[in-house]
Amino acid sequence: MIAPGATIGIIGGGQLGRMLVVAAAQLGYKCHIFDPHEDPPAAHVAAAFTRADYGDAAALERFGAAVDVATYEFENVPVGPLEVLGGKLRPGAKSLAIAQDRATEKEFIEQTGARVAPWRAVSTLDEVRSAVAELGTPLVLKTRRYGYDGKGQAWVRDPSEAAAAWELIGNEPAVAEAGVEFLAEFSAMVARWADGRTATWDTPRNEHRDGILRRSTVPYAEGRNLAPVAQRAALQIAEALGHVGVLTVEFFTTPEGPLVNEIAPRVHNSGHWTIEGAVTSQFEQHIRAICGLPPGSTDGVGRGAVMDNLIGDEVDQWPDLLAEPGAHVHVYGKGEARPGRKMGHVTRVLR
Amino acid sequence: MIAPGATIGIIGGGQLGRMLVVAAAQLGYKCHIFDPHEDPPAAHVAAAFTRADYGDAAALERFGAAVDVATYEFENVPVGPLEVLGGKLRPGAKSLAIAQDRATEKEFIEQTGARVAPWRAVSTLDEVRSAVAELGTPLVLKTRRYGYDGKGQAWVRDPSEAAAAWELIGNEPAVAEAGVEFLAEFSAMVARWADGRTATWDTPRNEHRDGILRRSTVPYAEGRNLAPVAQRAALQIAEALGHVGVLTVEFFTTPEGPLVNEIAPRVHNSGHWTIEGAVTSQFEQHIRAICGLPPGSTDGVGRGAVMDNLIGDEVDQWPDLLAEPGAHVHVYGKGEARPGRKMGHVTRVLR
Repeated sequence: MIAPGATIGIIGGGQLGRMLVVAAAQLGYKCHIFDPHEDPPAAHVAAAFTRADYGDAAALERFGAAVDVATYEFENVPVGPLEVLGGKLRPGAKSLAIAQDRATEKEFIEQTGARVAPWRAVSTLDEVRSAVAELGTPLVLKTRRYGYDGKGQAWVRDPSEAAAAWELIGNEPAVAEAGVEFLAEFSAMVARWADGRTATWDTPRNEHRDGILRRSTVPYAEGRNLAPVAQRAALQIAEALGHVGVLTVEFFTTPEGPLVNEIAPRVHNSGHWTIEGAVTSQFEQHIRAICGLPPGSTDGVGRGAVMDNLIGDEVDQWPDLLAEPGAHVHVYGKGEARPGRKMGHVTRVLR
Repeated sequence: MIAPGATIGIIGGGQLGRMLVVAAAQLGYKCHIFDPHEDPPAAHVAAAFTRADYGDAAALERFGAAVDVATYEFENVPVGPLEVLGGKLRPGAKSLAIAQDRATEKEFIEQTGARVAPWRAVSTLDEVRSAVAELGTPLVLKTRRYGYDGKGQAWVRDPSEAAAAWELIGNEPAVAEAGVEFLAEFSAMVARWADGRTATWDTPRNEHRDGILRRSTVPYAEGRNLAPVAQRAALQIAEALGHVGVLTVEFFTTPEGPLVNEIAPRVHNSGHWTIEGAVTSQFEQHIRAICGLPPGSTDGVGRGAVMDNLIGDEVDQWPDLLAEPGAHVHVYGKGEARPGRKMGHVTRVLR
């Protein structure tokens, strides 16, 4: 076990890192943030901050020497330079490598026995056209790398749109994915320990707009029968990755059952409800798992919870939200409320 | 209102400061700790740390210029040098000045209409002997200043012990207080806003050992009838002080009703249960009050809560406590687990 008093390194200094620091602090740990930006939100609450590029091996080596364990809140970082962290990196490089390439990810998910929407890897316009012919429309192109919050995606609603979509995503290696007619979206978060212990929470229903998560709700009543299937799939993926820490798997609800959309090898926006809505939050559980502490109870608190993101200038609603009895308001301490930027969230627990 | 994004200065860098920083971070504030020690626990999570003596007016002036509002987690700091903070200091200097002198405090409490145990100010052994003659024994001598966790106190159980007790507290100006035969101890925490708004929580029963708080429990079922009386007294004291922020009043339960023991012009150990046991914790509420944000709900969560301090090497129980489902473990990140030192706490919420 990595005992309280130790230092936890966190690669990435956004709001997920910030909430990890707060959870770690409650348990008595210090945190050290590694991030290329000038003033990342997580650095405001961390004991130490290294500002360096994610690919800066020398800086990562110094960082690794300064921490007792290292984790990440962000998967779009180059894997190679992280090798200097050796066994201190939890989850390991495999979780990162698989999750940051959509083609590798889908192959891996299928190998574990879980289902994904029909897809093809594409790297030329000809391959895009073949995929459209085979999979039909609507179809969505997603760059293999560096996509998040709907970025790097383009829809092909008619075969004639193939070239324009290919252009839109920048002619980059991509996956072509059959458009799924889904009834809902939801996610399963699991935590896994190095010795194979696991924990899961209730599975929230997720609602997106413009590719960005807007709301997560537990319980997802209509999906009650799907939860065990989804949790089992998530646990199998975590096991196959040898994952240590929290892993999130996003699903589509289809008439034929749940389909995996994508995985995130980390704590996730759809798990923010656990801060006030569960006995142990995803953030505390991640710290417990990477430090080898015992799993915390993932029981829900109250009858359910609704988490709404505050995107862009929605964060300006804070005075009204703070005046609402029982609303738990989180503001991330980011500078500028740019459109589409996650600035905070609010959770209402149904008691 | 002092909006999220602003910087909150906190005088004192102990565990109360640390928990204030965490609550402030959730709301989007940065914190700046002012403390004379080398590595205070609150500095681990703060955006900035000034290491300077509490009496260092120049350092306080720079601190005041760097923050938007300043508060304190510790009342044994000289009041004079804080004048440079002007209106930025919340609660104000009056709360501090009254609370840090036991004689002034008792006079003040009596003026608000609340009751305290019979007492005399004493500054010579002759005065101690007169007090013993007038108030009888048992009687307790408490230094007027700098007492906490039972320090600076000596009992006189028989008139013959007067000289020894006076010696024990260092022949310092003190109050002689009639020993109260109490049935229990409890506390009332109130938050007050600059415009007079207030909020109160359920009143925990407190159990001490060797002068140190060991356990706080809500509800304090046997004291249910006393709670409104105690809350009213606490609100009157807060009002009379023009207090802004959380104020804690400790009471003795006596057959004749509640007697005020002492006040703390700040968040308090007996309110730690509010982190998981109430919708809004004492820490968040203090930040809301000093920043002029709306009051948060102080409703309890679940059927009650029990908070146990981890004193000295009791903190070494962390592996077992973390393995207990539903126990919320807090470790303060202090270096050495010296006997009598508050190292952490654990809260169990009855759901």
